[in-house]
Amino acid sequence: MPAYTAPTKDMQFVLHDVLNVTNSDIPGYNELEADFTSVVLEEAGKLASEVIAPLNMVGDSEGCTLGDGGVRTPAGFKDAYEQMRAGGWMGLDCDPDYGGQGMPYVLAIAVSEMFTSANMAFNMYQGLTHGAYSAIHAHGSDSLKATFLPKMVDGQWAGTMNLTEPHCGTDLGLLRTKAVPQDDDSYKISGQKIFISAGDHDLAENIIHLVLARTPDGGDGIKGISLFIVPKFLVNDNGSLGERNGVTVGNLEEKMGIHGNATCVMNYDEATGYLIGELHNGMRAMFTMMNEARIGVGMQGYAQAAVAYENAAIYAKDRLQGRDVTGAQNPDGPADPIIVHPDVRRSLMDQKSFVEGARAFTFWGAKLIDQAQRSDDKDAKALISLMTPVIKGFQTDKGFEMAVQAQQVFGGHGYIEEHGMSQFVRDARIAQIYEGANGVQALDLVGRKLGAKGGKPVMAFFDIIKTFIKENDGNEALKADFLDPLKAASKDLQAASMYFMQHGVKDPNTALAGSNDFMHLFGQVCLGLMWARMAKAAVTALEAGSGDAEFYQTKITTGRYYMARHLPATTMHLARITSGADTVMALAPDAF
Amino acid sequence: MPAYTAPTKDMQFVLHDVLNVTNSDIPGYNELEADFTSVVLEEAGKLASEVIAPLNMVGDSEGCTLGDGGVRTPAGFKDAYEQMRAGGWMGLDCDPDYGGQGMPYVLAIAVSEMFTSANMAFNMYQGLTHGAYSAIHAHGSDSLKATFLPKMVDGQWAGTMNLTEPHCGTDLGLLRTKAVPQDDDSYKISGQKIFISAGDHDLAENIIHLVLARTPDGGDGIKGISLFIVPKFLVNDNGSLGERNGVTVGNLEEKMGIHGNATCVMNYDEATGYLIGELHNGMRAMFTMMNEARIGVGMQGYAQAAVAYENAAIYAKDRLQGRDVTGAQNPDGPADPIIVHPDVRRSLMDQKSFVEGARAFTFWGAKLIDQAQRSDDKDAKALISLMTPVIKGFQTDKGFEMAVQAQQVFGGHGYIEEHGMSQFVRDARIAQIYEGANGVQALDLVGRKLGAKGGKPVMAFFDIIKTFIKENDGNEALKADFLDPLKAASKDLQAASMYFMQHGVKDPNTALAGSNDFMHLFGQVCLGLMWARMAKAAVTALEAGSGDAEFYQTKITTGRYYMARHLPATTMHLARITSGADTVMALAPDAF
Repeated sequence: MPAYTAPTKDMQFVLHDVLNVTNSDIPGYNELEADFTSVVLEEAGKLASEVIAPLNMVGDSEGCTLGDGGVRTPAGFKDAYEQMRAGGWMGLDCDPDYGGQGMPYVLAIAVSEMFTSANMAFNMYQGLTHGAYSAIHAHGSDSLKATFLPKMVDGQWAGTMNLTEPHCGTDLGLLRTKAVPQDDDSYKISGQKIFISAGDHDLAENIIHLVLARTPDGGDGIKGISLFIVPKFLVNDNGSLGERNGVTVGNLEEKMGIHGNATCVMNYDEATGYLIGELHNGMRAMFTMMNEARIGVGMQGYAQAAVAYENAAIYAKDRLQGRDVTGAQNPDGPADPIIVHPDVRRSLMDQKSFVEGARAFTFWGAKLIDQAQRSDDKDAKALISLMTPVIKGFQTDKGFEMAVQAQQVFGGHGYIEEHGMSQFVRDARIAQIYEGANGVQALDLVGRKLGAKGGKPVMAFFDIIKTFIKENDGNEALKADFLDPLKAASKDLQAASMYFMQHGVKDPNTALAGSNDFMHLFGQVCLGLMWARMAKAAVTALEAGSGDAEFYQTKITTGRYYMARHLPATTMHLARITSGADTVMALAPDAF
Repeated sequence: MPAYTAPTKDMQFVLHDVLNVTNSDIPGYNELEADFTSVVLEEAGKLASEVIAPLNMVGDSEGCTLGDGGVRTPAGFKDAYEQMRAGGWMGLDCDPDYGGQGMPYVLAIAVSEMFTSANMAFNMYQGLTHGAYSAIHAHGSDSLKATFLPKMVDGQWAGTMNLTEPHCGTDLGLLRTKAVPQDDDSYKISGQKIFISAGDHDLAENIIHLVLARTPDGGDGIKGISLFIVPKFLVNDNGSLGERNGVTVGNLEEKMGIHGNATCVMNYDEATGYLIGELHNGMRAMFTMMNEARIGVGMQGYAQAAVAYENAAIYAKDRLQGRDVTGAQNPDGPADPIIVHPDVRRSLMDQKSFVEGARAFTFWGAKLIDQAQRSDDKDAKALISLMTPVIKGFQTDKGFEMAVQAQQVFGGHGYIEEHGMSQFVRDARIAQIYEGANGVQALDLVGRKLGAKGGKPVMAFFDIIKTFIKENDGNEALKADFLDPLKAASKDLQAASMYFMQHGVKDPNTALAGSNDFMHLFGQVCLGLMWARMAKAAVTALEAGSGDAEFYQTKITTGRYYMARHLPATTMHLARITSGADTVMALAPDAF
């Protein structure tokens, strides 16, 4: 069974040494003292390692089953879910008015990373509930909030998001599910939804589905769509469960991974629903929580890479095969551990430096979300809005790639299911696809976010880099290894942005043909920036002689690897981008 | 169910327009007239599409089962296998003295590509038999050859390769399986082998295992190892099957993919074996067939990408979602097919240009093998020996990446098993691992092949590029789009080679830390060269006004895409390589 050890020390480093969370005027951040976050992370880590992680392979091999009583989750899931509830983890960052603990998102995402690394399919049940909670919290009436939120925050009830239909995934304007208004202000919802994660299960008493549907007067396209609450069981006035609503599971999908999570076809047959948000403005209500959900998926990307890396490193230190080319390291044994081989090291360093960089980037993103939401900071909101598709798209692409590399360290033992490495790869794969496939993230970045507010957010991003480089100009410990490569990579990103501005308006295909490369180029620069900031923090700590010198030295070395070995990708992406749309679009569809 | 259409026209183009196979003095190549190869490829394509491909998903979902009578293959496999035998496909390139058809390898690999795209797990049964055939053919005594080869060439008997043991994969010097000599010149073989593809099955009457084992006087390490034939059923003097030999299936592995192929733990308990090749020189006998086997695996890499691409292209033309940003292309429909979106095109072009480039490269490699074997051409042998790890490593890495991209085109529909795209990805993954994991290929390339014969083969490779560029210097149709980028990429490869020569001897880690990047850099240059040659052939045909102008024009456009969008990776790989081993090797094992 794979190991999972929570990276508490690395997380504390990001929260306190790099992001200086307590030194911030974001409401609630004053609670995030190092001692406090340490206790929270240690406790979450214990639950993740001891309770949730041991169910990961069980969930994969057993999967979910659909019977007369609905979907049954794998053995042990219900018990672990109850432990998660009992520990108060469900509502960690939820509104105290509804029973939540009101913690900042930056702490909640750290905890989520642990649960996701431990068992991604399992943690999705809670994650979907949280998404539904956020939408109801932002857009529901007081009465609906009072009815549904406390039990969702507590985990007694769960939630789902119902967007996709068989003929409509990305293009929600095509959706057909109908909502017919009734005399009592409720609606009758009818239609079919597919790919509904956590669509049904036995972990909670009730499941609160959020469903996009079209009212008869809604007209065509995206503008006629509204958002509805459709509970599995209707709720009586006194809050007790009433009769079964007209929603059933049509099928359980067979899929590549996340077998422990039930991906359902949901059939709505005149099910009772309640409007939340404005009529015909359901997309806006959905988009409210999109940034957060997408950052959560971006976290899943590196969280799978993180646990895969941990196990690859353990295996590489344990597996004896071949000899160090510079001289035997284990002369008394039959061979050396494979970590002596430079290409195995190269792979482990690729993984390690990505995971730690992505964690820092994601936590920074979560801090910006807190800043936007808790301080109503418009600049923070604009910046995180720009970076969200990067966190989601770049990190899930790279996270998958790194999980594949971790699997590769195991050789043939990685291909058989016994060691669990195949599962990490298969589970990580979904994060590139759901919550907006990565091509859609790239389109969002280039087609919408880049030019938003006249380009102010992207200029603000470049300013952050420029300011950082300027502030640390005289720091010889950072210059050659961090500041210079960051500057060069940032120039590539600026050149790409400029190229799009010059060509994009008259020929939008020119920009869009480079959108995937732009997203990756942007991601590299973001992780480059985060590594420069981490190196700065480590150098500062070393100079102050505080803490664990070896830990900080390792950070610097890992960062140097990232700058030397990941960052050169920016030049390639720029070259691809500036080759334009010509060769991309030249062929007629029949030529494919 | 996924589609499969054999790429007969593309193959004919490579064989005749690019490689000019009939215009060659390699013995047997005079038979390869375009009319003849066309008939062979059409017939093979029909078998692949109509018989073998429809069993691909069945094989995946049903898998193999182990019962008292041994391993049972999925429904339909036996019937398809018999059709393959009846068509004479088993022995296509085998020695006519043993019932083979004596065709060149270059034609056999084209046929194999089709069968592999159609059903990789199924075709492995034949592939393993062919590998065992080759070893016996090259090293067996006349008597052993007479006993075993005719039935293996016919497919009545199958074959396997037994190298790996639980504690020893790459490092075969650690192997423990024992071979004790008997009075009658036979040996008693005892030990356990793992990961044995096609280790047992019900497709053939007998299975001929080739087993690496150590004789009591063999001593430690790689030098004490010999190679043995161990048949599942002993063979009587008259050729009929005798009693069951002491070899049994210990277990059937659960794995990520290729479920239709039985990956077995094989237990040898005083099984009767016959030495082939020299005593204590079994590794040499194994290596004889390694080039061919590794090129076969490199073919599997792009063959999975090829069929995944075909299905992604079909889906992209069919699936309606969103509108062309430059104006609706399907104004009467609810949306445009997703192939109008630049990032979907980008992905399809990535796939298409890789697959066609890799096919050309692999066929060229197969031609070099024919040249080496049929003409005893030492230069051809040295060149293909150099390029073999590139074909295996680069093409399986990229092939997997492209299969993942093809899956991504399907969005959520790619993640569920229904469309078969997940299977292509899961099946393709093994090719990066077996027959020498890709890290071992990179090590072989940099540590052994690059410096072989004082670097003569790699210089010969550079000369081929230089000569091609010089010969076509005045060709304006090729210069900017093909010759210039090829020259630049080739310079990156030369710079990397030079870097290794300057640093590698005094610090071998410096070279080895860059080995994976060097393999990829080399692969990019090889495909760049092949695209330049294909463009040249297409330009020539267009000038001559012969054939299908649209076909040739599409080749040129696809090649331009490759040069503009894949080839810029060389600069990134060079930058990674020249960053050296410092950041790669700096951390102590405990820091991981």
